[in-house]
Amino acid sequence: MTELIGACAREVSAHVTAVSPAMGPASIESHYDEALAVPGILTELHGADAYVIACFGDPGLDAAREVADGPVVGVAEAAMHVATLVSRSFSVVTTLGRTVQRALDLADRYGCARACRGVHACEIPVLDLDDEACDLVAEVAEAALRHDRSEAIVLGCAGMGAYTKEIARRIDAPVIDGVQAAVTLAESLVRLGVTTSRKGEYAAPPPKPYAGLLSEFALRAESPI
Amino acid sequence: MTELIGACAREVSAHVTAVSPAMGPASIESHYDEALAVPGILTELHGADAYVIACFGDPGLDAAREVADGPVVGVAEAAMHVATLVSRSFSVVTTLGRTVQRALDLADRYGCARACRGVHACEIPVLDLDDEACDLVAEVAEAALRHDRSEAIVLGCAGMGAYTKEIARRIDAPVIDGVQAAVTLAESLVRLGVTTSRKGEYAAPPPKPYAGLLSEFALRAESPI
Amino acid sequence: MTELIGACAREVSAHVTAVSPAMGPASIESHYDEALAVPGILTELHGADAYVIACFGDPGLDAAREVADGPVVGVAEAAMHVATLVSRSFSVVTTLGRTVQRALDLADRYGCARACRGVHACEIPVLDLDDEACDLVAEVAEAALRHDRSEAIVLGCAGMGAYTKEIARRIDAPVIDGVQAAVTLAESLVRLGVTTSRKGEYAAPPPKPYAGLLSEFALRAESPI
Amino acid sequence: MTELIGACAREVSAHVTAVSPAMGPASIESHYDEALAVPGILTELHGADAYVIACFGDPGLDAAREVADGPVVGVAEAAMHVATLVSRSFSVVTTLGRTVQRALDLADRYGCARACRGVHACEIPVLDLDDEACDLVAEVAEAALRHDRSEAIVLGCAGMGAYTKEIARRIDAPVIDGVQAAVTLAESLVRLGVTTSRKGEYAAPPPKPYAGLLSEFALRAESPI
Amino acid sequence: MTELIGACAREVSAHVTAVSPAMGPASIESHYDEALAVPGILTELHGADAYVIACFGDPGLDAAREVADGPVVGVAEAAMHVATLVSRSFSVVTTLGRTVQRALDLADRYGCARACRGVHACEIPVLDLDDEACDLVAEVAEAALRHDRSEAIVLGCAGMGAYTKEIARRIDAPVIDGVQAAVTLAESLVRLGVTTSRKGEYAAPPPKPYAGLLSEFALRAESPI
Amino acid sequence: MTELIGACAREVSAHVTAVSPAMGPASIESHYDEALAVPGILTELHGADAYVIACFGDPGLDAAREVADGPVVGVAEAAMHVATLVSRSFSVVTTLGRTVQRALDLADRYGCARACRGVHACEIPVLDLDDEACDLVAEVAEAALRHDRSEAIVLGCAGMGAYTKEIARRIDAPVIDGVQAAVTLAESLVRLGVTTSRKGEYAAPPPKPYAGLLSEFALRAESPI
Repeated sequence: MTELIGACAREVSAHVTAVSPAMGPASIESHYDEALAVPGILTELHGADAYVIACFGDPGLDAAREVADGPVVGVAEAAMHVATLVSRSFSVVTTLGRTVQRALDLADRYGCARACRGVHACEIPVLDLDDEACDLVAEVAEAALRHDRSEAIVLGCAGMGAYTKEIARRIDAPVIDGVQAAVTLAESLVRLGVTTSRKGEYAAPPPKPYAGLLSEFALRAESPI
Repeated sequence: MTELIGACAREVSAHVTAVSPAMGPASIESHYDEALAVPGILTELHGADAYVIACFGDPGLDAAREVADGPVVGVAEAAMHVATLVSRSFSVVTTLGRTVQRALDLADRYGCARACRGVHACEIPVLDLDDEACDLVAEVAEAALRHDRSEAIVLGCAGMGAYTKEIARRIDAPVIDGVQAAVTLAESLVRLGVTTSRKGEYAAPPPKPYAGLLSEFALRAESPI
Repeated sequence: MTELIGACAREVSAHVTAVSPAMGPASIESHYDEALAVPGILTELHGADAYVIACFGDPGLDAAREVADGPVVGVAEAAMHVATLVSRSFSVVTTLGRTVQRALDLADRYGCARACRGVHACEIPVLDLDDEACDLVAEVAEAALRHDRSEAIVLGCAGMGAYTKEIARRIDAPVIDGVQAAVTLAESLVRLGVTTSRKGEYAAPPPKPYAGLLSEFALRAESPI
Repeated sequence: MTELIGACAREVSAHVTAVSPAMGPASIESHYDEALAVPGILTELHGADAYVIACFGDPGLDAAREVADGPVVGVAEAAMHVATLVSRSFSVVTTLGRTVQRALDLADRYGCARACRGVHACEIPVLDLDDEACDLVAEVAEAALRHDRSEAIVLGCAGMGAYTKEIARRIDAPVIDGVQAAVTLAESLVRLGVTTSRKGEYAAPPPKPYAGLLSEFALRAESPI
Repeated sequence: MTELIGACAREVSAHVTAVSPAMGPASIESHYDEALAVPGILTELHGADAYVIACFGDPGLDAAREVADGPVVGVAEAAMHVATLVSRSFSVVTTLGRTVQRALDLADRYGCARACRGVHACEIPVLDLDDEACDLVAEVAEAALRHDRSEAIVLGCAGMGAYTKEIARRIDAPVIDGVQAAVTLAESLVRLGVTTSRKGEYAAPPPKPYAGLLSEFALRAESPI
Repeated sequence: MTELIGACAREVSAHVTAVSPAMGPASIESHYDEALAVPGILTELHGADAYVIACFGDPGLDAAREVADGPVVGVAEAAMHVATLVSRSFSVVTTLGRTVQRALDLADRYGCARACRGVHACEIPVLDLDDEACDLVAEVAEAALRHDRSEAIVLGCAGMGAYTKEIARRIDAPVIDGVQAAVTLAESLVRLGVTTSRKGEYAAPPPKPYAGLLSEFALRAESPI
């Protein structure tokens, strides 16, 4: 999955390194998985000019922005923003039905509650997103466009990136892969010379002791993670 | 802090046990702290009829609802709902300014965007909420009520519960402590015989392997955590 | 109807007294009925620690809060709040189609416009809600859950309370009776020691003369109703 | 008050008859007053081509629409709609501070939550709105316009109509009296030949017995009130 | 088309003069048409007491308000406001599917996002709205009412005005023609003696040079257009 | 102005050509100016891979998307989206007070109604935005950040781009120039290989005759502009 996502990302930028945290779930398909993916994500936010969190739930985005040494972009965030630049309305095609509400919550957070006309599940687990699955995802995308009378498709899982061109060809409408979208937005921020504001919400967290299994996560006064 | 919160909770119910997770931050004052508090919280959700997450950010509430063996109530959620039962508008008094946006986000999620007229910071770190701090919190509450023309105060930190009565006395308006509010709502759910829906959003997460430091968090097919 | 509602309420609390006003409509199925039910309701708000208005339109809730000598909870309000504690989305099952918009208005007022996914009418008049009607209500509830992809059911009439357990059994999802929900919330407020704020919206009304048929409703300067 | 309102109304239409119900409060300054004004209002909805409810809380508007034999317009509704035809934003000047939230609720219901930039109280009781009060109302209007950076003033009490021209002269911006606005809108509906829809929300209420003091309000099957 | 619209308008007011700008598209069916209709509209805003822009997209409404010498009313704006005076919900019947989003945007701007339950296209080009088209428009209106469970119909094209009575007869619900609605609202403003506020948004535009084909549009310091 | 904007744009991309339409107003400071700027803009949408409309009102964006042969990005749209990638809240600093509402409308359209905490005018006409004006703009930006408790500044006029770095230096927070932001987003779309959807809203407009001064704008069936 990490390799596949990296390959997709490199189609739009030569400068991407794809990494997978050493701790956490094999895939993210629930709030539980998402919560436990975040600590691992937080260990990887150093050494680059900008960061992309390559999971459509944008897990840990706020925490990452507090501690990363450069801007951080989520893939749902990026995909939804990009969709609104080429359409007035979009549908999201996601993996499992249980993640539908999560996509709606993100659409609301990113100001896309009106533009996002529906979230449709393929009921394919993330790790089963192989070449054959493309057909089913394309069919759901086509049906979503028709049902929602929407104008573009947002792929609701970082693991669907390889299908982008094929689905776009079939439905004759913009199809947005969040990973590629986020990479171009992250590079945009680097070129604009802007990074996360340290006023208010994303100021560096106050240092303090951490207990038990997570004691290594304690931030020290002098330095970010 | 845990003892103090337990004592407050027991003022409204004899059945409360207060526990503090064995892993995670000493207090929660950032998205980073919140993210890293969640794994510890998720280890404590068994053996009771209902659960209260005693931090005003309601960390891990969605994940907790997926895996707990009874209903779970957040303290921000409870405090805001209760405030709307005794007023049309409320102000939140929180600890650090950096958590203001978090409170606004929660107000929005809980349908209180219109009722919540303002979030005001005392700029007191959570672990400094001792007896002397009560004066400052009361002053901020009084000023908030006047400035926002609001009708009730929601205490924006589980550690402020001991101030509830004193502040209510001073401002002559309802003051809501989230911990006490959440305990009464959790008991309400038990008495109503309802628990978290397993349709859609909060169905049991699909089991899968977990890597590294967090490998013990893997859910097995046969059982919740 | 009053006895039946009282019996339901006492399943969750031994302290409930159910009363029916001496004036007003036999049932509430229109704005007209609702408006004319309010004077009677306002005559009953004394002598208890807290009050529940047992009609899903929450008739007279604001006026009741101004004059009652303790907190007042509406059943739609309570049912919707409780539903959001055990699900992310719910459907309302109501009696007549003409009350659908009223339920939507209440969902909006109580901050549940996003959580309330649909309001579905059984087209059964309130006073026909006998044992046999339970089947139809259950069928509508089941269809609502499927159609709205929602996770819980709110019963949209105080007279449906006796069906709660049976419908929950059939649909395997939380079913919320507003009367029971409101009773537990009213008791929560009593235990929390909070009552209606007298700042702003719910301050005691200015006394003044009342004319004609309603002259007995005039508030005197020295006392609430 | 009734005469004064009638005189204002007749400035924009020769066809107005002003009536005051035989039962209810001397003025409306609380939810309690409003609730108890509604029965009286409901007895007056016959014999005209269209009806205006001349109180800024639009009391009983929904019930009135169900039973009146012609269209019914509220003065808050009319004033807010008219204000949006001549400006992008307005402020409301009301009598007592306790009615501020009511005006905000109405702005929300009538789709003016964004356009209504503020509601400002003069703290003058309705029955004290004499010639001298005009000065104070004008001052509050002027301050409201400046504070809210709004572009028009909506007078938040039917009893302020006589001040309209004088305040408009002083502030050099549109000032909308709800009574006059509602009269012109009611006449518009008559000229358009449209009246209240009998589909759904405003269908004729089902007839049923009414008890006690209000028994005369029972609707019979064959006829509207 | 201009004659037909004028005839409809004169059914509700004897004082209407219908004019068509000397420049611009033959009909308005796209953002492109709308943008290029505006300059022509702006040349016609003089010599009357009030102005109605007789195209359902309300093209140039804001610009018109800045420069017209009297109030300006849009037909979508008027139709939607009037619909909310006689119903709680309405459906819009429009010409081409590509204008659906435009109607939704206008509903949102005019505070009718909740009241507008759907926008339905007949797929009839504006200039084909002849007598025979009435049948199809009526069928779409009937289906819209049923599908959206709405209570009134707003005709989404100024060219549909001649169908108003026939469709109302068939569906037994209010049908609103924007042109007639706007004419009555424009006359209401004249009778109320209010015109566009010159505070803020609609102050007279600063004069400046205009280049090329549009150089005649330059406003001079001393006078409006 | 055109040269200056071009120079700013080329700081983030070597591929920008800055053009100014041959017809229309010297600057855009009103709805009237904006409406009359659009025809000129529509003549320039050919020969590039993507287009940026370099005026903060995003004039003609929808019409441009219908007819341009590549994606089109507005500068307000781009600036607001980028601001949300590096902060939770921003303030807009604009030229004249009369454009404040326009910025609020755009924030609402682009889903930034919550993130945009305020719009502040410098009261400097667009064509007076010289080197000396930078000081005043910086002061307004600083005051806006403090007053709104916001975390980033969006420059509300394409002519302010040259101030970006200086203001960022002074306020130590992200400052977003819409022109630079839009250029990077337009390039992102090109790299992603997506362009405006031709489904629904932005399908090619139906061809038709255009009259008078604008007759050259008629689209022919076979080709876009």
